Amino acid sequence: MTDTELHPAPHEVEDELDEDDRMRPEFVRAVLDAVETGDHAAARALVEPLHPADLADLFELTPQPERAALAHAVAGELDAEVFAEMNEHVREDLLDALTPGEVATLAAEMDTDDAVSIIEDMDEDDQRAVLRALDPDDRAAIEEALSYPEESAGRLMQRDLVAVPEHWTVGDVIDYLRRQEDLTTDFWEVFVVDPGHKPVGTCALSRILRTARSVPVAEVMQREQTLIPTDMDQEEVALRFQKYALISAAVVDASCRLVGMITVDDIVHIIQQEAGEDTLLLSGAGEGDINEPIRRTVRSRLTWLVINLGATMISASVVGLFQGEIARYALLAVLMPIVSAMGGNAGTQTLAVMVRALATNQLTSSNTLRMLGREFRVAACNGAALGGVGALGTYLIFGDPKLSAVFAAAMVINSLVAGMIGVVVPVALDKADIDPAISSAVFVTTVTDVMGFLSFLGLATLVLVP
Amino acid sequence: MTDTELHPAPHEVEDELDEDDRMRPEFVRAVLDAVETGDHAAARALVEPLHPADLADLFELTPQPERAALAHAVAGELDAEVFAEMNEHVREDLLDALTPGEVATLAAEMDTDDAVSIIEDMDEDDQRAVLRALDPDDRAAIEEALSYPEESAGRLMQRDLVAVPEHWTVGDVIDYLRRQEDLTTDFWEVFVVDPGHKPVGTCALSRILRTARSVPVAEVMQREQTLIPTDMDQEEVALRFQKYALISAAVVDASCRLVGMITVDDIVHIIQQEAGEDTLLLSGAGEGDINEPIRRTVRSRLTWLVINLGATMISASVVGLFQGEIARYALLAVLMPIVSAMGGNAGTQTLAVMVRALATNQLTSSNTLRMLGREFRVAACNGAALGGVGALGTYLIFGDPKLSAVFAAAMVINSLVAGMIGVVVPVALDKADIDPAISSAVFVTTVTDVMGFLSFLGLATLVLVP
Repeated sequence: MTDTELHPAPHEVEDELDEDDRMRPEFVRAVLDAVETGDHAAARALVEPLHPADLADLFELTPQPERAALAHAVAGELDAEVFAEMNEHVREDLLDALTPGEVATLAAEMDTDDAVSIIEDMDEDDQRAVLRALDPDDRAAIEEALSYPEESAGRLMQRDLVAVPEHWTVGDVIDYLRRQEDLTTDFWEVFVVDPGHKPVGTCALSRILRTARSVPVAEVMQREQTLIPTDMDQEEVALRFQKYALISAAVVDASCRLVGMITVDDIVHIIQQEAGEDTLLLSGAGEGDINEPIRRTVRSRLTWLVINLGATMISASVVGLFQGEIARYALLAVLMPIVSAMGGNAGTQTLAVMVRALATNQLTSSNTLRMLGREFRVAACNGAALGGVGALGTYLIFGDPKLSAVFAAAMVINSLVAGMIGVVVPVALDKADIDPAISSAVFVTTVTDVMGFLSFLGLATLVLVP
Repeated sequence: MTDTELHPAPHEVEDELDEDDRMRPEFVRAVLDAVETGDHAAARALVEPLHPADLADLFELTPQPERAALAHAVAGELDAEVFAEMNEHVREDLLDALTPGEVATLAAEMDTDDAVSIIEDMDEDDQRAVLRALDPDDRAAIEEALSYPEESAGRLMQRDLVAVPEHWTVGDVIDYLRRQEDLTTDFWEVFVVDPGHKPVGTCALSRILRTARSVPVAEVMQREQTLIPTDMDQEEVALRFQKYALISAAVVDASCRLVGMITVDDIVHIIQQEAGEDTLLLSGAGEGDINEPIRRTVRSRLTWLVINLGATMISASVVGLFQGEIARYALLAVLMPIVSAMGGNAGTQTLAVMVRALATNQLTSSNTLRMLGREFRVAACNGAALGGVGALGTYLIFGDPKLSAVFAAAMVINSLVAGMIGVVVPVALDKADIDPAISSAVFVTTVTDVMGFLSFLGLATLVLVP
């Protein structure tokens, strides 16, 4: 082994990644060109230094029709870890080309949680075939994980963990760890359990390393710990990890026995995904995954568009009530979209803030009324400012003081309505156990559209139209 | 010490939190009632079992005028950790009541990164006063951290870490750790450095614990590692931690020397915040912090509303071009908001997907063209579906085949425009190094409004109005 092999460059500067950590298009092109010309050795040489997460990215950036050829060319590098890091749609696409036996070989190499995430997405027939091809221990672990609800702690947890009895000394723990050959998973804390296998404390490895061998673990363990029930939703698990700055946590069954552990590295992508999801849900973009099959994308987006179409028809019918006035005074049709759009914008601002506050447990029954008051004051300030600007603008353009007054009044009314509805809708949906990110937006914009048209055209009818 | 004190209930079931991990309003009320009646002992007894993160939540849920009294009542429990967990606005509010000396005492108890996050938000005068009150070591560490740009790795990192030379054995490392008394921070990995203090590898503590004492660390360390430059933006740091599933990472200066470390528990809230931020930015809600002073909230939201007002005036002026047609055929004013609103909805869907894909480095120059093609196909499908439904609906209601055809054609055109602009705007802003989440929405909705009005009213003028 040469010296350079012993001391490879650290992972900081990578030519295949640009300064934003995005894979360079020239690199992707170079690999795909090598694949296309059949130069598999060159392709393998290019991808060999890649971290599994980066190789997974390469597959995601490769157009779907070329992925199978890439997989074939770099087969030796395409291991379980790469599959574990891959976008689920890209992975499904690649796995479809493999036999159940090949998938089982991959799954057997993975941590239970990663294997489960691959197998849970398969058809029932394929699932059964893969499970049959696994050895009995792996099969039992995966079948048990699949028995928990989707997106629950039971699916996320690993069964490989270190649990020691309370009466052991630090030395006992160290000797035990040195003896255990088959601990495959990374771990950062040791769980201390009572004779009934219930967790009584945790001990960070740094604590064990820094304590004399003769000290009992019970003396150095931390008794206060966050236990995760197997049926807890992954979003709640993620919030707990974040709130209490956890590195790992014990997962317990209904009778409080230790059955698994979740480590923070399994949780970071869930934190990211759950927090980012709200952006997509609020805009009605469904999962919003750019690798999703196009038919599913069309279906999920179209559902929301059709619901929105129904909602805009309701607000259009409000305009319909005033056709006579509009025919006599077409300027109303010019100004009315401004009132409804500004209400929609203000309502969306409030809505986004409330949805995030609910998702991060900052908005609770303790402060809902206070927030309603806060948003009312914000809406009053913003409504007054916009109404003022709007009134001045319309007066300067059209020179009609009555029209300006109507426009300003409608802006203020709609701003207040927007602020209130932007709080009430998400809070009410949350109380009804409906994710406010999913359905709030259509309610809020329908109300602000209807109120925008109604207040402006209604006031105009009273004041302006003879 | 009684047996119950030795074995407190684990942290799982807490009466002060409900099943969603939100603090119960009855609990908040009970504490505040005790504070109000001057029963400080009762208030302290209630908050004493709380985790610092939960006590911080309690302060956030307490109305601003009552926070000082609460702080006074539970002063003994209000330690550095609670301040570190607290929302910055609530914290600033409480810190304002303290002397620089008191703040310095708190800061001295904290990890450097937490102390920096408190001090960086202060006025320059207060900052200087607090720094003067710190002892020289702490002052130097905090001043050095403040010399790095805001939201950079240099600000986030801790200076307390364990670095060992490559020639040490595992036994040397363990003995060294047992000797070090003043290691205050949690750590999960040991960094191995060369004589120039450049990192050459990392060694997980579990690896050290499971290896015989005589083995050199250089043999068990992991050579491939992710190094973080001090000036890297925290968003990039968070993405690296997530992508490579890091527990901790070495921070290096410009000459590649090890100067600090970042651990994953410091990063999880940044992952959450950066991913959640897009929801708020896309809707123009600024920081969207419900604890922000109301004047700042009004200012940041009003900025976006005024920009939007300008944008809606542009689209209103398009309607203004068709006043004559609208006066003759007022039905156009009823249907035109539907076309523009549906374009806005479709554009927002695409935009949300692209903003998330850019933020997570999934959308790069390698697949931008492919995504444009993908969105075109989605827009064509959705436009055709909505146009069809819309045409049928308008025909059934108004019985005018020409009107229905115009409506359908405008829906298809605007859907295609929405899909294209929803990709082009965020990608172009990102190329220009502008955060697409901040400013894309106003561009996209302006284009879809203008095109909605223009295509519908324009086609109607050609086809319908004599």
